[in-house]
Amino acid sequence: MSTNFNLKHLLGIRELTVDQIAHLLDTAETFLDVSRREIKKVPALRGRTVINLFFEASTRTRTSFEIAAKRLSADAVNISVATSSVSKGETLLDTARNLEAMAPDCIVIRHSSAGAPQHLARFCSAAIVNAGDGSHEHPTQALLDALTIREHKGRIAGLKVAIIGDILHSRVARSNVYLLSKLGATISVAGPGTLVPPEFAELIEQGVRVEQNIQDAIADADVVMILRIQSERQTEAFFPSMREYAVHYGLRLSHLSSAAADAIVMHPGPMNRGIEVSSEIADGGRSLILDQVTNGVAVRMAVLYLLAGAGKSENGGKKTPAVKNGAKKERSGKLFAQ
Amino acid sequence: MSTNFNLKHLLGIRELTVDQIAHLLDTAETFLDVSRREIKKVPALRGRTVINLFFEASTRTRTSFEIAAKRLSADAVNISVATSSVSKGETLLDTARNLEAMAPDCIVIRHSSAGAPQHLARFCSAAIVNAGDGSHEHPTQALLDALTIREHKGRIAGLKVAIIGDILHSRVARSNVYLLSKLGATISVAGPGTLVPPEFAELIEQGVRVEQNIQDAIADADVVMILRIQSERQTEAFFPSMREYAVHYGLRLSHLSSAAADAIVMHPGPMNRGIEVSSEIADGGRSLILDQVTNGVAVRMAVLYLLAGAGKSENGGKKTPAVKNGAKKERSGKLFAQ
Amino acid sequence: MSTNFNLKHLLGIRELTVDQIAHLLDTAETFLDVSRREIKKVPALRGRTVINLFFEASTRTRTSFEIAAKRLSADAVNISVATSSVSKGETLLDTARNLEAMAPDCIVIRHSSAGAPQHLARFCSAAIVNAGDGSHEHPTQALLDALTIREHKGRIAGLKVAIIGDILHSRVARSNVYLLSKLGATISVAGPGTLVPPEFAELIEQGVRVEQNIQDAIADADVVMILRIQSERQTEAFFPSMREYAVHYGLRLSHLSSAAADAIVMHPGPMNRGIEVSSEIADGGRSLILDQVTNGVAVRMAVLYLLAGAGKSENGGKKTPAVKNGAKKERSGKLFAQ
Repeated sequence: MSTNFNLKHLLGIRELTVDQIAHLLDTAETFLDVSRREIKKVPALRGRTVINLFFEASTRTRTSFEIAAKRLSADAVNISVATSSVSKGETLLDTARNLEAMAPDCIVIRHSSAGAPQHLARFCSAAIVNAGDGSHEHPTQALLDALTIREHKGRIAGLKVAIIGDILHSRVARSNVYLLSKLGATISVAGPGTLVPPEFAELIEQGVRVEQNIQDAIADADVVMILRIQSERQTEAFFPSMREYAVHYGLRLSHLSSAAADAIVMHPGPMNRGIEVSSEIADGGRSLILDQVTNGVAVRMAVLYLLAGAGKSENGGKKTPAVKNGAKKERSGKLFAQ
Repeated sequence: MSTNFNLKHLLGIRELTVDQIAHLLDTAETFLDVSRREIKKVPALRGRTVINLFFEASTRTRTSFEIAAKRLSADAVNISVATSSVSKGETLLDTARNLEAMAPDCIVIRHSSAGAPQHLARFCSAAIVNAGDGSHEHPTQALLDALTIREHKGRIAGLKVAIIGDILHSRVARSNVYLLSKLGATISVAGPGTLVPPEFAELIEQGVRVEQNIQDAIADADVVMILRIQSERQTEAFFPSMREYAVHYGLRLSHLSSAAADAIVMHPGPMNRGIEVSSEIADGGRSLILDQVTNGVAVRMAVLYLLAGAGKSENGGKKTPAVKNGAKKERSGKLFAQ
Repeated sequence: MSTNFNLKHLLGIRELTVDQIAHLLDTAETFLDVSRREIKKVPALRGRTVINLFFEASTRTRTSFEIAAKRLSADAVNISVATSSVSKGETLLDTARNLEAMAPDCIVIRHSSAGAPQHLARFCSAAIVNAGDGSHEHPTQALLDALTIREHKGRIAGLKVAIIGDILHSRVARSNVYLLSKLGATISVAGPGTLVPPEFAELIEQGVRVEQNIQDAIADADVVMILRIQSERQTEAFFPSMREYAVHYGLRLSHLSSAAADAIVMHPGPMNRGIEVSSEIADGGRSLILDQVTNGVAVRMAVLYLLAGAGKSENGGKKTPAVKNGAKKERSGKLFAQ
C-alpha cells in the first residue's frame, strides 16, 4: 500500500480508488480485534466528537456507528429526526452548519434523499460520512460486505457474486456493485423486472450481468447477496404481493445447489424471514449475516479513525495502526493521543 | 457467603437462590457509596458495552440502568422502540442477535411480552438482564425494594409485608413475592377482586395471604408496598373507575394506624397521586419512595458489575468489591482494570 | 472581579447580578479554546452526572448542552418527552425528584411552561439549569449572545441593540433585554403591534424603546437581533400571514443601511430563511449566527462547570479556570479532579 490516504469525506464507493478501499479494509481488519477483547476500547479518538445525524430510523447502523465511536473513545452524540428541529422548518444545510459550529470532528448522516451527504460535504468542513442516502449509496455497508468476503474467501478479485432483489432502489446493491467491480469481482443480478430493469445503464456500465431469474444469477456464484425488501419504501408497488415475491425471488436452500460448493450467503439486515430469505438459509452454515454485523463495527471504527482521528493526517505509508490497550496508550500516547 | 456467584443472566427472581440474592444485595450495598461521592465513577466496566434495549417507554428504569452503566465506566447505548427497526418486521430474536454481533457485554431488555428476556437468553451469549417483561417479572425492582427494606429494618426474614393493588398484572408484585418469600417474609395482598383473584395459584404456592380489604392486609405490617395503577395497560377494565379505585384501594394516612408503629411505605413509581396513594403518605416520614430510586442505581450497578464485569468470573468467595476512586484504580488497576 | 460566585441554579437572567454575568462570560471565554483543540476534552466534571430533561424538542440546545457536558468529561444522560413517563401521569416535580434521587449534579430542563425550572429549584437540591421555559427565559441563549457581542465589539455597555420580531412570546428576547440592560446597552424593539405591545410594562421598566417599524428600531444600531417566528407556538394568529410578516418585519440587506457601519446581525436559530431573515443577511459578512452556536457550547460548559463542578465551591476570587489538556490534568489533578 503506497497510497497516501487523503480522504476527507466518505460519501460513496464510486469516488474511491482501489487503494483507498484496500486501505479502509486493512484498517478495519486491525480494529476487528478490539471488539474481541474484554476491554473493548482504544483511545484513538479521545476528545473527538462524532455526531450521528439520522433522518431515517435505524437500529443497526446508528448503533454500529455509536459503538464504533465509543470504542475509539470519541464522544458520540445522537440526533434523530423525531427530536430534531427539522420540524421547525430549518434547511438541512443550516442544521448541518449549526452542528458544525459546535466543532464536531465527524458528522455521520443518514437521509432519505440521495445526495444529501454530498450537499453537506460541499459546504461543511467537518468530515461527512454517508450512512445511507435514499437509493443512492451506503458505503460502509459495502465495505463491511467486502471485509466479510475477504475474510472468508481470502480475496475479492475473480469471485462471482450474485445480488438478488430490488436492485433499482437499493443503496446497498449500488455501493456493492461499485466496490466489487473495482476490486475485480464478476457480478450478476436478478429480481423482478420492474426492480432490475435490463436496460439499467449504471449496471451495464459496471459490467454487471442482468439475469432473468434467480437460478441463472446464482449459477456458480461464490457469494450470494440477498437484498432486503424495503416495504417501508413502497417497493411493493413494483410486484404483485409479498407472497409472489417470496415464491419467485426468496432465496431457499434448493437454489444454492447450482452455486459454488463453498458459496457464502449475505444479507444487510434487517431480514424479512420467509420473504427474501428462508430461515434455513439465514440460520444455515453458509450464512455470514452475523459476521457482517460484527465486521460493520470494525469498518465504522476504521472510517471514523481515518477521517476524524490521527489517522487522517499521519498514516500515509503506514498500513496498520497499532491498536493496543487503551489505558496504556493513553499514557505513552504516541500514536493516538494527538 | 460461601457461594460461587455463577449467574449468567438475570431473568427473574424465581430462579435465584437465597445466596445469589444476598450476594446481589451485598454488592449493591458497596456501590451505594459511589453515588454519594463528588466523583461518582469507578472503572469497573471500562471498555465494556451495555445496551439498553427498551420496547416500552420508561424514564426511570432506562435512566437508572444508563447511570449505573456510566458510573461503572461502561459504554452505554440506548435503543428505544420508537427508533428501532422493529417496525421493519424483524423478529425480536434477530434484533437481539444482531446487536449481540456487535459484542456488547450485556443487553438490558424491557419488553411488553412476558418471557422475552428468557427467549433471548436461550439463543444469545451476551448477559441478558430483564428490566421488566410484560406482567411477568421485574427483578431489579424487587432487589432494590429488598435493599431498601434491609437498609431500614436490618433484615427481611420475619417481616410482615403488605402489597396493595393490581397483583394480577404487576411484574413488580410477582418479583417481590418471590424475593420476599425466599428471604423469609410473610406476605399479604389486597386489591380489587378482579385483580387479586383469591384462587391465584402462584400466590397460594408462595404462602401469600389474600385479604378482602386493604385494612386487613395492612394490619401489623412492617412494610406496605403500593402498586402503581397502570392505566396504560388497560387495567381500568378491571374496576369501575379511577375514583372507585382511589376510594377503596388508595392508601391514605388513616390506613396506617393498624400497621406496625414503624411501618415503612414503598411505591415503585411513577406515582398516581390521589389514586393509589395520597400525597400525605407519599411525602410523609414513612415513605421510602425516593430511597428506592437511589437504591435502584446501586442495585443496577451490582447487576451489571456481576454479570458483565470482572465480577462475573473472579468474585466467588470475595463478598464486596473494593470500590475505590476511579482515577486511582485506573492506574493501579488490580481489581477492576485487569 | 471580586465577587464570590455563589449561584446554585441558573433559572433566568433577571436574578443575576452584573458581576455574576461577567463571571459567567469570563469563564465561558476560557472554555472557547477547548473546542478549538484536536482533543476537545478537559476532566473538569469527570464523574459528575448531567441530565438533559427536555419536554420540548430541540436539536440545537440539547446537543449544545450534551457536547458541553461531554467536553467537560461529565456523564450526560438525555431524557426527551417522547420516551418519558410523563405520559404515565406523574407530576413534573415527581419526575424531577425521582431523577434527583439518582444523584445527578445538574438537571438541565426545557419545558413549555414558564416557571417550570423555578418550581423544581424550590424542591430539588441538584443544580437546575433553565434551557428555555415557555415564553419566560432562556438564560444560556442571552449569555451566548452577550459573549458573541463582547467578542466582536469588545464591550456591551453603550451599544445600541435592536431586537426585531415577536417580543411578546420570545424567551430569547426577554432574557436578552434583562442581560443587555444590566450591562448598559440601549435597546429598541420592533415587530407587529400585537407582538410588541407599546404598553408592555416589562419593556418600559427596562428602559426599552418600542418603535413602530423595523427601520426606526435599526437606526444607528450596533447589533441587530432577529427573533425566530415560532410557527410551532401559534404566533401566526398574531399577524395575517407569513408572507405579510416577511414583507414588514423580515430583515433584508436594505434595512441595514441605517444601522451603524459595523453593525452585526444575530439570530438564535433555527432560521426561517425568507421569513424573518433574508439569505443575503444570514450568509453575509455581518452575520454572527454560527459564532453564536460556537459560543453556545462554551457558555454551557461555563454554566455546568460553575454549577456542577469544582467551580461551584472554590472559584470565588479566581477569574479563569486553568483549562489544560485532559490527560495531563487527570494525573496531576489539582484544579479539577479534587
